[in-house]
Amino acid sequence: MKEGDIMIGAQVGRVLKSKNSAFAAGTFALSDAGWSTHSISSGKDLTPLLANWPAHIPKSLALGTIGMPGLTAYFGLLEICCAKKGETVLVNGAAGAVGSLVGQIAKIIGCKVVGSAGSDEKVKYLKTIGFDEAFNYKTVSSLEEALKRASPEGYDCFFDNVGGEFTDVALHQMKKYGRIALCGAISLYNDSVPRKAPYVHVPLIMQGLRMEGFTVQRWLNRYNEGLEKLMQWVIQGKLKYHEHITKGFDNMPSAFIGMLKGDNIGKAIITAK
Amino acid sequence: MKEGDIMIGAQVGRVLKSKNSAFAAGTFALSDAGWSTHSISSGKDLTPLLANWPAHIPKSLALGTIGMPGLTAYFGLLEICCAKKGETVLVNGAAGAVGSLVGQIAKIIGCKVVGSAGSDEKVKYLKTIGFDEAFNYKTVSSLEEALKRASPEGYDCFFDNVGGEFTDVALHQMKKYGRIALCGAISLYNDSVPRKAPYVHVPLIMQGLRMEGFTVQRWLNRYNEGLEKLMQWVIQGKLKYHEHITKGFDNMPSAFIGMLKGDNIGKAIITAK
Repeated sequence: MKEGDIMIGAQVGRVLKSKNSAFAAGTFALSDAGWSTHSISSGKDLTPLLANWPAHIPKSLALGTIGMPGLTAYFGLLEICCAKKGETVLVNGAAGAVGSLVGQIAKIIGCKVVGSAGSDEKVKYLKTIGFDEAFNYKTVSSLEEALKRASPEGYDCFFDNVGGEFTDVALHQMKKYGRIALCGAISLYNDSVPRKAPYVHVPLIMQGLRMEGFTVQRWLNRYNEGLEKLMQWVIQGKLKYHEHITKGFDNMPSAFIGMLKGDNIGKAIITAK
Repeated sequence: MKEGDIMIGAQVGRVLKSKNSAFAAGTFALSDAGWSTHSISSGKDLTPLLANWPAHIPKSLALGTIGMPGLTAYFGLLEICCAKKGETVLVNGAAGAVGSLVGQIAKIIGCKVVGSAGSDEKVKYLKTIGFDEAFNYKTVSSLEEALKRASPEGYDCFFDNVGGEFTDVALHQMKKYGRIALCGAISLYNDSVPRKAPYVHVPLIMQGLRMEGFTVQRWLNRYNEGLEKLMQWVIQGKLKYHEHITKGFDNMPSAFIGMLKGDNIGKAIITAK
């Protein structure tokens, strides 16, 4: 992942004219063309959408539920958290593009799911998409108590999108041999001086815990497997999606800042007009 | 592991008289009887030594190389670090009971091994038992430079017995998808206030690193497999042992403090007389 990627984002576009037989006019594809309404491509930087994309499924899901965030949730939960039926999964940033999918996939495979989010509206949303327990971390009197109340017996898996104090507290609520997937650290990105936490050695050793960081590129050769599974669940209605849509490129900066501040539920999408 | 275990230690003793057919007189066994020259046991708290223990192999190795420390090194390196032939392994506390075995087992399976220890005498010892690179962390001008010099291309595995600043620095010398086994944190045990370190999220995420804590009890049902392998390597001369022997129970407190201070090379053993 190059740093610049963050600002360029990814786009779903439609091929208008083509001299490349791999991308006939009318084809939808992911591109790296940046924030432009029209662009010219040799086809090299285009990725075709999953074949047989049903007409009633928005193509923009290729940027979210059936795209990178979906794959991040899918592989992170199954390959890093190694979540199994009957286990209890904790996810923070739970109403975000990735978090909301982590919780739903965990439910699909038969886990109990606890989510943390930063507004009552988000908590309400988490309940509607099947989270067993959800709480607003900004208003609970004690994060430790909230985690204990939601799952008194502790957590087998913790999908961490946030970092910071949340991690420090959750670490001590893990069951023996628990697995922590480090996916993001949104609470830490704005630090000019790196913030510090107590060494993790003693809790990790005593409970036999695993903490593993990842980016989705790790499973590049398995993207198709993941995308097909995600599409299947969307079609079956098992995976609900919610897009936070901002209209017009002019509004991109405020949409980006809003995303970092936690304004959105689900994937932040910007339409050209 | 109960906290009291640390002070009780484990003993190798010989059965003098017996009414239990499982432990005939003359049998050597591990016991939990504490610091006593003689004790009475129903046999419940005794663990027989590995069968067919060769006469020329000291029975005290059942407390070290062919005991808990050996098993800790064996399973920690193979199951937590997942070290594979051709990889580079870093171990700190490398001249200790566990560390010296980690390095040697890593060599046996075909790894490059780098060790850190706290005296020139220990560093010399590490070279004699086959470490590819070893340095005295107390006298190097920069730990980061020492690690880079020993393995410019970085480390696949890091077997951490120490914690603290060593971990902070080593973390940034790991190769992509590196594995860190947290076995101990001797640098942290004396802290009255838990010391802090920068959050590990960003390096773990960016490099896809895994950090996992463990105690050897995790492989209770595989002890025999491990002990037989360790014995085989000792008999073949592939695994060299060095015991730090203190004579007489009266000297136990100073031997224990010395162990925590880093006086010993290899396992600290106390004889009854």
